[in-house]
Amino acid sequence: GTTADVKVALMEIHNIGPCKLFDTAGYDEEGKLGQKKLQKTHNIVKESDLVIIVIDKQAGSDEVNENEVIQLAKKRQKNVLIIQNVRDNSPIEISTYKGLPSLQINLNNKSNYTKVIEFIQTHGIQKKKPAVPLLPQHVLGPDKTVFLNIPMDAETPGGRLLRPQSKCQEFCLSNFTSTFAYRMDLVKGRSKNSKVREAEKKRFQDAIERIKPSIVITDSQAMDLVGRWVTPDKFPNVQLTTFSIMMINQMTDGQLPRFIKGLETLKTIKSNDKILISEACNHDRLTDICEDIGTKQIPDKLKKKFGNSIVIDHAFGREFPYDKLREYSLVVHCGGCMIDKQKMCARLDDCIENNIPITNYGLLLTYLNSPKALKRVTKPFAN
Amino acid sequence: GTTADVKVALMEIHNIGPCKLFDTAGYDEEGKLGQKKLQKTHNIVKESDLVIIVIDKQAGSDEVNENEVIQLAKKRQKNVLIIQNVRDNSPIEISTYKGLPSLQINLNNKSNYTKVIEFIQTHGIQKKKPAVPLLPQHVLGPDKTVFLNIPMDAETPGGRLLRPQSKCQEFCLSNFTSTFAYRMDLVKGRSKNSKVREAEKKRFQDAIERIKPSIVITDSQAMDLVGRWVTPDKFPNVQLTTFSIMMINQMTDGQLPRFIKGLETLKTIKSNDKILISEACNHDRLTDICEDIGTKQIPDKLKKKFGNSIVIDHAFGREFPYDKLREYSLVVHCGGCMIDKQKMCARLDDCIENNIPITNYGLLLTYLNSPKALKRVTKPFAN
Repeated sequence: GTTADVKVALMEIHNIGPCKLFDTAGYDEEGKLGQKKLQKTHNIVKESDLVIIVIDKQAGSDEVNENEVIQLAKKRQKNVLIIQNVRDNSPIEISTYKGLPSLQINLNNKSNYTKVIEFIQTHGIQKKKPAVPLLPQHVLGPDKTVFLNIPMDAETPGGRLLRPQSKCQEFCLSNFTSTFAYRMDLVKGRSKNSKVREAEKKRFQDAIERIKPSIVITDSQAMDLVGRWVTPDKFPNVQLTTFSIMMINQMTDGQLPRFIKGLETLKTIKSNDKILISEACNHDRLTDICEDIGTKQIPDKLKKKFGNSIVIDHAFGREFPYDKLREYSLVVHCGGCMIDKQKMCARLDDCIENNIPITNYGLLLTYLNSPKALKRVTKPFAN
Repeated sequence: GTTADVKVALMEIHNIGPCKLFDTAGYDEEGKLGQKKLQKTHNIVKESDLVIIVIDKQAGSDEVNENEVIQLAKKRQKNVLIIQNVRDNSPIEISTYKGLPSLQINLNNKSNYTKVIEFIQTHGIQKKKPAVPLLPQHVLGPDKTVFLNIPMDAETPGGRLLRPQSKCQEFCLSNFTSTFAYRMDLVKGRSKNSKVREAEKKRFQDAIERIKPSIVITDSQAMDLVGRWVTPDKFPNVQLTTFSIMMINQMTDGQLPRFIKGLETLKTIKSNDKILISEACNHDRLTDICEDIGTKQIPDKLKKKFGNSIVIDHAFGREFPYDKLREYSLVVHCGGCMIDKQKMCARLDDCIENNIPITNYGLLLTYLNSPKALKRVTKPFAN
């Protein structure tokens, strides 16, 4: 293989829809670099819906690495197809190879390409489960309103809403449900001056009383205030959650319980344990000006609870330390709105496979602010 | 010149900020193709904040075309700089050329590039007027709510809000103003069954009574319903406008009065006149399934008013028929949220220069539904 990096192409394929195609290195290369390329291929297998292995019949194939890829794909419940490239003009044949659907075809002949697509359409596309909705049915309806608390800070980009906020509103509106977007003043709400603090609390609670929302969804970083201001005593008919909890539930097709379970680890964390904070976004982290969630708020709270010798690592953007996962006692993940579902699920599956507990920004911040509130923020998604 | 198409680069330049750079063809080419390239250069001049003319001192320059470009730039109040490329190592000199700041420099020497940037920073950057806000101050405030009517139809993309909706919400929230997003059911609201119609009207009016917004902003296509349902009699404290009116006012730095004036032409339109409908976006137009604003709703209403022999042309996306403008009795433009301000202003300036009246989607739909309502939808932006 001469492909060192994975090549990516976006494409719309008829009868399949929008696709993200990855072209990986061949896995028949020896040495350290070959191993590195193979690792990359494994990571891509984990993030794919469909794995197509292309074998050159004449050149033969590396059976050991091939089996490893196939086993990994099967373990992760990916669909696997084989395409055997034949150089002569022998007829196109669909057989099986290692029990997998296999097409024998001359790939150098461009007129065969539609046959390849047909093969993929027939054998490669799994019936998809219906996607888990962003919000459950019981908070939706033409006379209901979803309350969005959007505090904004110095890191908030101008000119548009953040993705979870925009997605949530589009979802609500398409379900004929109104949304009320409110900006809480975090500085005032956390002020040491009780008059300032109480005035901000009153403004917020007045808005909720006026709007009578079915649910309040807040930016995770405001859970310290929202958790105390929207209590079940005061607002028995108002449910509560965070954008990051809402997102992670949808991004993992409803596997929120797994992230809730991850919190149990907090009872056994030792002072020298390593915790990985994984955030799918690559924004500027203005730790000095505002309280960045991933680099300031969560680390501060963890250190307060477990002491300063706790080790906190970060993974930002599209990278995730698959190969170092076992070092960590806990992974804390954001809502994942900036990566695709497949990548988010690959991260979750890797944690499961390695027995590494994983939890979520909104869940952790809720739990650390008030363990009592935890049940509250997850209840909307309980079946 | 060998550059046929205009080359575009996006760049962030220190002390200037984000820039869109256009590299045009030289204007010294003769013949029909040369004329075409010159026309493209003229269009780019119209859409620029700063025009830099690069002259090769040894090769000389085409004085006629050069003067034309300079005159056009001056007429459109663009800043113009001259860079004279000298091939020897003579010292860098800032002089004037045709009364314009002019830098003599060897552009083949890369170490001179910072000098070029300094020259542009010193002589090329106009003090910008403060941008016109998206909404006026009097509808904003921590206890005020802006009501957004978002009907959605088959053309509405899923997963996010439209740009004007997202921009408007971000603007309101950054000003600590709440937003209430509501989806009106157009089919029910326009139903022939009066019970269905009245129920939808009641749901809408109840929401407004509950929310007590400072302003209702609606998708233009719902003006037929909103204009009748949000009357000053029923809601004296609620102002009213459309997303497209809000956008065009900001995109043209407050030149909404020009678009209001364009409506006067409707009194003198003759049955064979040509009208140009210009929409900056390139979405699918599902005229059969839903009432597309640009290709169905506006043409239908114009034909109803002026007869079927009225000629209606369309310009979609980033193209605008600068060279055919004089054929039209009226230009009807969308809010322009999918092009940049400079391009929108260039279109407006071309209409002004050619004495072609121009108006806007929201204004026209309001006027054709109820001339009385026109004052209402423009009042929020009146000084």
